[in-house]
Amino acid sequence: MKENEQSEITVSHEWNTMNVNRPPVTVIGLGMMGSALAQTFLKEGHQTTVWNRSAGKADALMEQGAKVASTVAEAIAASPLVVICVLDYGAVHAILEQAGEILADRVVVNLTNGTQAQARQTAAFAAGWGAEYLDGGIMAVPQMIGSPGALLLYSGSQKAFQTYRPTLEGLGAVTYLGDDPGLAPLYDLALLSAMYGMFGGFFHAVAMVRSEQFQAEAFTSLVIPWLQAMTASLPGLAQAVDADQHRTDVSSLIINQTGFANIIDTCLELGVSPELMTPIQGLINRGVAEGYGSDGLSRLVELIRKPVSA
Amino acid sequence: MKENEQSEITVSHEWNTMNVNRPPVTVIGLGMMGSALAQTFLKEGHQTTVWNRSAGKADALMEQGAKVASTVAEAIAASPLVVICVLDYGAVHAILEQAGEILADRVVVNLTNGTQAQARQTAAFAAGWGAEYLDGGIMAVPQMIGSPGALLLYSGSQKAFQTYRPTLEGLGAVTYLGDDPGLAPLYDLALLSAMYGMFGGFFHAVAMVRSEQFQAEAFTSLVIPWLQAMTASLPGLAQAVDADQHRTDVSSLIINQTGFANIIDTCLELGVSPELMTPIQGLINRGVAEGYGSDGLSRLVELIRKPVSA
Repeated sequence: MKENEQSEITVSHEWNTMNVNRPPVTVIGLGMMGSALAQTFLKEGHQTTVWNRSAGKADALMEQGAKVASTVAEAIAASPLVVICVLDYGAVHAILEQAGEILADRVVVNLTNGTQAQARQTAAFAAGWGAEYLDGGIMAVPQMIGSPGALLLYSGSQKAFQTYRPTLEGLGAVTYLGDDPGLAPLYDLALLSAMYGMFGGFFHAVAMVRSEQFQAEAFTSLVIPWLQAMTASLPGLAQAVDADQHRTDVSSLIINQTGFANIIDTCLELGVSPELMTPIQGLINRGVAEGYGSDGLSRLVELIRKPVSA
Repeated sequence: MKENEQSEITVSHEWNTMNVNRPPVTVIGLGMMGSALAQTFLKEGHQTTVWNRSAGKADALMEQGAKVASTVAEAIAASPLVVICVLDYGAVHAILEQAGEILADRVVVNLTNGTQAQARQTAAFAAGWGAEYLDGGIMAVPQMIGSPGALLLYSGSQKAFQTYRPTLEGLGAVTYLGDDPGLAPLYDLALLSAMYGMFGGFFHAVAMVRSEQFQAEAFTSLVIPWLQAMTASLPGLAQAVDADQHRTDVSSLIINQTGFANIIDTCLELGVSPELMTPIQGLINRGVAEGYGSDGLSRLVELIRKPVSA
């Protein structure tokens, strides 16, 4: 912790000129999401330094008051808190390797989408240079950043989270999942899976309705309340999975199997590819074939956790 | 319309003893959904006659005041409004064929899940016997029937819908889609697709979280607000589809492609089958391969409406 204390002295000049709740922040990566993060930090009153591999992306932020660093090292040296949001962990490592010893005493918050293994490996790399590491998952589209509707998941250094919690709360609601840096990616990817499933179902539904020349936008007035109503089923399904008790008073796999055939038949009539639906149908059919026809849909979770034979 | 008038005279004895807004109703099919429909009609004060292929299912309803018909013909003769909710259209036709001329002047509301073609064919069959036909889709689980959260879609005879609208509103919110009896199945199946997509994504997400020994139920406190927040993206996606303009300020197909690989990699590490996610990944990859990498996810709808080459 000696190095930590020394570093705090190094940056104290800047800190004294700022509200302690508004520490200087560096944002690395200025894609749509990174730009939204930097913009929000600026709005919140943080001295904000930005860097992007290609330079043009910083122009709008510079007009809004951001300092534009000309090198990664300069960007990381500028702030005790460094937020990274780039395309993938390959890009993260390229950045951290350029920084090297400048990482000492920084807090690195990596909001880049990646796997559990990548997060743990990056945490170890950062620790090796004396940095505290938080991995994060952004559960929001860029336009939501800075609003309470945005959820950001964090895991890794609890000390870093506690120190910078007020700053991180400026980006949206926060949830700290634990010390293991792999937790944020796990939950992030699980939530993204749920989103992709919902979007996939929506796209399929829109393809069906559009095939009959109806407007997709008008259809959203039916589909949004319907999906929102159906989220009320999720806690019951989750309880059934936790308890491994799949009896149902809603609808059995056999009922779902019968109805599902109507979806596929109609798609074939309409010329809509059933490719987003057939895997779900396959899973329901497998459940029935394995003798679970009278169980509810919650049974399906077990089937994708077992090795698939076919 | 002569026959109609005559029929109204035939049943007028019963009608006189009831509120005109509470006509006698027959419910055919007493699975979980049919039983919920009959129970709701009873609660709403309708004289309710029920029939089911296997007899035992009517016992609870009889205790609640339902008349139990011993034949389909007796059931259909008992009420001017006949609601059918059985497993499939095969069962619907077996029922209607037994009824034959007793169908004259009845209003048949068929809430059985089926295809557009099946609905149109059944409407023609019913018309051949002088019945008015409404096809319907129930967008609710049985427990929601009778509450405003349940949505029931109807199409077919506008006259039948207008006549029995107050009765049908006892089951839940109603939407009349038009004269074509195939419209209710189209929208029903589209909405079910959207639901299956959402459930599939949820099951995949739960499988990931459970693989790391976390409780599914606790996870719902993250996933439900997340999915509800993401429904806010659907109108924008729908507008993009309608306008065939897929530029994005949210995230491009290339960004999604990169993040998606992390989902699949993590599933393989966790031993979770990626089978519900790979079709969505395949579609994103196809979009990128066809040169749409900088477009948003709305581009995917077009790809499932085109014949799939692979």
